[in-house]
Parts: sequence; C-alpha cells; structure tokens
Amino acid sequence: MTKATSTQILLASRPSGWPTQENFTVQTVELPELETGEIRVRNEFISVDPYMRGRMNDTRSYIPPFQIGEQILGGAIGRVIETADAAFPAGTLVQHQLGWSDTVQAGSSNFKPAPDLPGVSSSLRLHILGMTGLTAYVGLSAIANLAEGETVFVSGAAGAVGTAAGQIAKLMGAKRVIGSAGSAEKVELLTSKYGYDAAFNYKDGDVREQLAAAAPEGIDVFFDNVGGDHLEAALAAFNDGGRAALCGAIASYNTTEPAPGPQNMSNLITRGLKLQGFTLSSYLELAPEFGERMGQWFSEGKIAYDETIVDGIENTVDAFLGMMRGANTGKMLVRI
Amino acid sequence: MTKATSTQILLASRPSGWPTQENFTVQTVELPELETGEIRVRNEFISVDPYMRGRMNDTRSYIPPFQIGEQILGGAIGRVIETADAAFPAGTLVQHQLGWSDTVQAGSSNFKPAPDLPGVSSSLRLHILGMTGLTAYVGLSAIANLAEGETVFVSGAAGAVGTAAGQIAKLMGAKRVIGSAGSAEKVELLTSKYGYDAAFNYKDGDVREQLAAAAPEGIDVFFDNVGGDHLEAALAAFNDGGRAALCGAIASYNTTEPAPGPQNMSNLITRGLKLQGFTLSSYLELAPEFGERMGQWFSEGKIAYDETIVDGIENTVDAFLGMMRGANTGKMLVRI
Repeated sequence: MTKATSTQILLASRPSGWPTQENFTVQTVELPELETGEIRVRNEFISVDPYMRGRMNDTRSYIPPFQIGEQILGGAIGRVIETADAAFPAGTLVQHQLGWSDTVQAGSSNFKPAPDLPGVSSSLRLHILGMTGLTAYVGLSAIANLAEGETVFVSGAAGAVGTAAGQIAKLMGAKRVIGSAGSAEKVELLTSKYGYDAAFNYKDGDVREQLAAAAPEGIDVFFDNVGGDHLEAALAAFNDGGRAALCGAIASYNTTEPAPGPQNMSNLITRGLKLQGFTLSSYLELAPEFGERMGQWFSEGKIAYDETIVDGIENTVDAFLGMMRGANTGKMLVRI
Repeated sequence: MTKATSTQILLASRPSGWPTQENFTVQTVELPELETGEIRVRNEFISVDPYMRGRMNDTRSYIPPFQIGEQILGGAIGRVIETADAAFPAGTLVQHQLGWSDTVQAGSSNFKPAPDLPGVSSSLRLHILGMTGLTAYVGLSAIANLAEGETVFVSGAAGAVGTAAGQIAKLMGAKRVIGSAGSAEKVELLTSKYGYDAAFNYKDGDVREQLAAAAPEGIDVFFDNVGGDHLEAALAAFNDGGRAALCGAIASYNTTEPAPGPQNMSNLITRGLKLQGFTLSSYLELAPEFGERMGQWFSEGKIAYDETIVDGIENTVDAFLGMMRGANTGKMLVRI
C-alpha cells in the first residue's frame, strides 16, 4: 500500500515589500497513520486572501505571524478521504483553517462539516457564502451602521469582499453605491453585474476628484479595502456623521516605508466622522444572522459572484501574488 | 442720559496661519433702545476657545464660518442691566453665545438664566461646570466608552478640556491616566493637582517614545486635543479595541500646509481600533446627565480647576492668541 502524502507550501523567509517565490518552499511529506479521532481530508479549494500578507511579517497583530519553516494557514474546503472518527465518514465535505496543502490530516475538532448545496460549488463556502461575505456584512452593519437611503463608497470593489459589499449594501437599502477598481473591465463589471450605481478606475486619475464626481451629494459610509489615497478621498467626500469600516489596506501591505496618513484627518472632528478598523474574528457571533439573510438573498438569485481559479497546489503562491496585484475579479481560489 | 454702548471685537480678515491683531478690529457702537422682549447684558466673563480658530477660516464645518466685518461669537456670561422682558429682571445672571463684546443686547430667547452658586465665580459656568466639562464628559463616555480599569491618554492635558478630562476619567474608574503638556510647570500640575498618574512634556522629545514609557501596558482610550504626532503616538500605543475621542487638533489649526496624517493608520485594522471625531453640538442631550454627575463631584470637592484671566474686552484677541500658544493653564477667560 502506497503511503499517503501531503504537498504543502511553507514560509521560507519573511518578505520585505512584495513577496516573491523565494519566500516560499513546496514540500511533499508522507502522512502517518491516522490516530483515533483524526481525519484525512483532500482539499477541493484553497483560499488566498490579502490578510495573509500581514501574517508573513513579524509584527504584532490580532493573529500571530506565520512562523518561518512552517506551513501557511488559511481557509480551505475538502472531503474526508480517510477517517478515524465515526462522526466524519468518508465523503463528508468539511471546512477548515489548515491552509496551503493538498491533503491535510488532524483531529476532527479542526474541521467543520459543510452541507453540500445542490448545484453549488463547494468553493462558495470560501467566499460569498462564507468568511468573505460575512466580512462585507459585518463591515456594513455592525461597524458602519448602514441605514436605508445612504450613499456608500467601496474601495477595491471588484475583489472578493468588494463585490459582496456592493450587493449587500444595496440589499440593505443603500440609495447609491460607488466602487473603485483597477481596470476598465472591472469598472464595467461593477455597474453591469454587481449593482454599483457608479464606478471608476483609480488608475485613471486622482481618487479624490473621481470620487467627488461620482458622489455629488457626498458619501455616508465607506467600506475600505485599500487605504492610502482612497481613505483620504473618502474623508474629503464624507457627509457629517459619516462612518468608515476599515477592512483592508492593500495599498500598504507591500510597502517597505510607512506611508503618511491622510492629510485631512481634521475632517473627523469638523464633520463628526468615525473610522473603525475591524477583523472578522471579533464578530463571528454575527455569522448566524448573516447566514440567514445571505441564504435568503442567494436562494432568490440576488447574489452575483466571480471566481478566478488557479489549478494545482504548486501554483498557490502564483495565485496569492496575482491576487495581491489585482489579477482577480471576485474571489481568487486554488483548485486542487 | 448717556447712551449705552457696546465694545465689540470683529473679524477684519481671515487669518492665514497664525492669527495676528491685524485680523481683528475693535469697535464701540451705541446701542438702540430696548424693544419689547429684549434684554441688555453686561458680560462678566467671555470665553476664548480653540474651536474658534476653525470658524475664522472659510471652510465647511459643523458650524458656519465667522463672517468678515461681523462680531466673533462664542460663550459668555453676564448680568441683565436693563430689561424689556419681565422674566429676566435686572441682576439676573445669564449665559449666551453672543461672544466677544462687553455689553450685548438681544431678544431674551438668546439667553439662558444661570442660577448664582454661593461662593462660586460665574466664570465656572464657562468651563468646568459648562461646555468645557461637558466636552470632556461626552468624549470619555459617549465617544470613547471608557470602562473601569482602563488606561487613558489625554493630549494637551493642561488646557481647559484636558484638566477636566483627566479628573473625570479617574472619577469614572480609569486605572491610569496619562497626560501631555507643553511645559515642565504644566506637567507638574497634572500629577500634583489634576490626578494624572503620569505626564510628560511633549517638547522634551519624541511623543511616541514618551507615551510608550508612560504607558508600559498600552492605552485603551485616547482623548485628543492636539492631533499630529500625538495621534500617531496613540495609534502606536493602543491596545486591541482601543478608542479615540478626537476633540481638537490644535497642532494643525494654524498651519497653512496640510500636515500628513499618522503613518500607522493600518493599526486601526490590525488592532480593531476606533477613531471618532465629535463636536459638542451633537451631544447636548447629555447635558443633564453631566450636570448631575459633575454637580455631585464638584460639591464633594473632587474637582480642581485653574483659570488664566485677562482683563478688559480690548485684550480679548491677546487672550485668544495666548491660548492658541498654550499660555494658559486650565481655562483662558476674559474678565470684563
């Protein structure tokens, strides 16, 4: 009987600025026999996400940094292929956070069963029906307190969180939703497919001017995935009482020098604004509420999504680097 | 019978950078006879406040800018000297927002009776028992949600709002309160008189380093009167879930070039921080609650304060400019 193996991506060294292939190594290891209570899972899809870049640095954050020489962790979904826990029979679809490998085995408490949805790819559990959609929902509801009739600006709107945020904002009653993206094709998709009322290409010119033109009556809520000039533009466009949910700052993830912050922070005082950063781990109690509302919207056909899929565990780093550079529309995934 | 007159300070031109005497004019006008429902008030004290600098610019804000050629408005307290409203007999102590003049007359709806407190100067209604104290209370309670056992940092702590904020924070149960000020004398007062557990002179060195030394376990709440390097230092010192109440940004009020914001805005996300600006006008509904709590603290002798008093309406601009430069400890006032 051939031994089972697992091909895994490890952090080889901490990136300085943009990560490169040299910061990672691929290894294939033999897996030991299962112990009682363990299961072995063959992944179907692996998630690559912007926040992972932060964990590659050795800095204080809400989750500890990845360790050099250890495997990159993150969301994935797969099926049980061998089991030593009767509660997880072979074939069970399971989600986990054990990350960048094609096959994983561990105690079953590390896995959460994910009911198969007829006609729906398991990959959706890693984005619109999962953490990504929940992130958009938490930012708009619990952080920004979006109210009906308000105007919302989403930066990096063609990414996984951004495509979810625009649609959820409209379904929550936003009057006008504006998005920024990094190509003409993405901008077109935002208005044609994702329900954005207006969109602009941030590479076309000054973000502040483009936002002002798209939001002649100002903005009330800002969902930020980008930071930098996008945050400064939002601070300039905010109406009194505006709220920002700061979800990501991809503009600064790969810089080596700290970038200066917005020049117009004093607007926070004169307009009574709120900026609040958040990470999903503090808001997981909203998952049931999100699941109910998103399940309803999804079953009614009100939710569009895109996936950008890279095949093969050995191409995971390529997928990650492409996502950081905006090569994806919607969710970037690795298919095993 | 000699005519009644009013000596008033007008905005002559909009300051660029630091205001100078040339931006203001003094005029003395004859007052007309009172019409029915009007009262004439001789001011006892006039308030000069940092926020007034903002109203001298022609920029969008929560309150409209002062108009060139018109009188500077703001808080004052005085006594009715002539009346055409039986509800406001001569001698009544009244507060109002009609600003920089020695004598003011207007419809009585512009005035609020202020009961005389035995042995207490009417000036306290303009600071610790009034808007200044309320500002400190709103920032700590409604904006920053200060909880018992937390560590608080107050910038510009020797000013009118700062001296109130430190004491209120301790009375609300803060474990440790840290303040910054601009002279050794002020720093000494913060710990000896105002209940601060630690204080430093921001002119002595890097604010971030001094704050880190004073707050080895980090800070949970930041009450900001200064902005600039103080905000950046607070973002570096915040524990997870920290909250900032942004009340003022005196560091930038008199600059002509916009200053870059903090370099460490991404801490907002990784630590789940909240920055919220506020102006008192949106939180006046907290005045009764504040009045009750502060009245109790004050009557128990738990509240210290200082006043820096300048005499004479003609010296109001000097008082204002001195306050902007930090010449005051506690509340800067003009006595008529």
